[in-house]
Amino acid sequence: MTRAEIQLLRSLRDKRHREELGLFAVEGEKIVSELIAAGHPFEKVYGTAAWTGPRTHEIGEQEMARASHFPTPSPVLAVGRIRRESLAPGELDRGLTLALDGVQDPGNVGTILRLADWFGLDRVVLSPDCANLHSQKVIQASMGSFARVRAIIAPLDAALAGLGAPVIGCALEGRDVHALPPLANAVIVIGSEGRGLSEEARRHLSYCVTIPRRGAAESLNAAVAAAVVCDNIRRVAG
Amino acid sequence: MTRAEIQLLRSLRDKRHREELGLFAVEGEKIVSELIAAGHPFEKVYGTAAWTGPRTHEIGEQEMARASHFPTPSPVLAVGRIRRESLAPGELDRGLTLALDGVQDPGNVGTILRLADWFGLDRVVLSPDCANLHSQKVIQASMGSFARVRAIIAPLDAALAGLGAPVIGCALEGRDVHALPPLANAVIVIGSEGRGLSEEARRHLSYCVTIPRRGAAESLNAAVAAAVVCDNIRRVAG
Repeated sequence: MTRAEIQLLRSLRDKRHREELGLFAVEGEKIVSELIAAGHPFEKVYGTAAWTGPRTHEIGEQEMARASHFPTPSPVLAVGRIRRESLAPGELDRGLTLALDGVQDPGNVGTILRLADWFGLDRVVLSPDCANLHSQKVIQASMGSFARVRAIIAPLDAALAGLGAPVIGCALEGRDVHALPPLANAVIVIGSEGRGLSEEARRHLSYCVTIPRRGAAESLNAAVAAAVVCDNIRRVAG
Repeated sequence: MTRAEIQLLRSLRDKRHREELGLFAVEGEKIVSELIAAGHPFEKVYGTAAWTGPRTHEIGEQEMARASHFPTPSPVLAVGRIRRESLAPGELDRGLTLALDGVQDPGNVGTILRLADWFGLDRVVLSPDCANLHSQKVIQASMGSFARVRAIIAPLDAALAGLGAPVIGCALEGRDVHALPPLANAVIVIGSEGRGLSEEARRHLSYCVTIPRRGAAESLNAAVAAAVVCDNIRRVAG
């Protein structure tokens, strides 16, 4: 690898550089294997001699150590092209959507992609202030679901305006999630870890749901709440 | 602070030192405030001038920087005594228990303490190979529930032997969690992120439950699965 190539790979740890270049990088044998198995079309796969999967470039351990974002580099680093998905007109009126309203922890965002995949949701919409979809931590926490779930970054104020499908917020006060009606089409809005639902999202809500509490915790983790609501929707949808 | 005191505080980042000394440390304004509000009996609370909560010792920023486990120290560091809880005879036959079978991610263990608190479970049992209960990351992810949830570290092979209450594993194949009978007493076993349920736990299971899957994800995050099962148990228990 040239010095410039190594510089480019290293620069992809930074969101601004990823967006300028339209590229992202992901490292680690398990996650890269999962994404390749899920059919993700990587542009380049750099592997050292220790990497047993498919590769486009064999590189030395020293080169990998210089390109890697990790203190202890993995034997593989894959580079993908960022595809900017956008919402089709009326798309959110069809099927089930999770909308993330400023969910900032990358582990939570990745875990939510994974559970959206498990529960067979149609898509995940991320407000622009969520953890960056193309960061290593989000992709890694998604456990390969990054390659399977349709994810769109869009401002929620515009995305949620004028929908026919119900827009349901998860909040500490709301209807009992156990009493949800069957919903073939709905948008479930998950607020941020720190401040809950934003004013921009709140103004588009049809209603809120809450998960009955028996104890003293002030709230639930964002991904945990999303999963419980999805399970309840899937349960009544049969 | 003396040099020896600073050394002692720094050493508490290490599990072995925590166990030798019977002490743990937790840092950060939000989490320390939550634990104090929940009535946790800290032995010492070291605060700089920037810390507005209760304290036993005021220290300078330089001292805090030397004692802290963080690259960017917080204005407060609290030290608590490790209380080794043990199971009373027959305890797991009464009420609802989450048993963690090698859950190794500290964020997952903390998130599970938090949801156990939310759903009003009676206790959480951790196998000795779980993430350490007294680590900063576990306590921080619990969001204060660390102070409220009864948590016992115990080998599951012994803890689960000869119970009258059903012992229910979460697995990819099992009965539909939506068809659970009402359960006033039960132990729910959550397997490790990497290898699922251990052989020692499996031999004590009454049956397994599974969360119906619609999509292609291979599994769910351990905390997410625990929450969905708890919600289903609470739902049918009324």
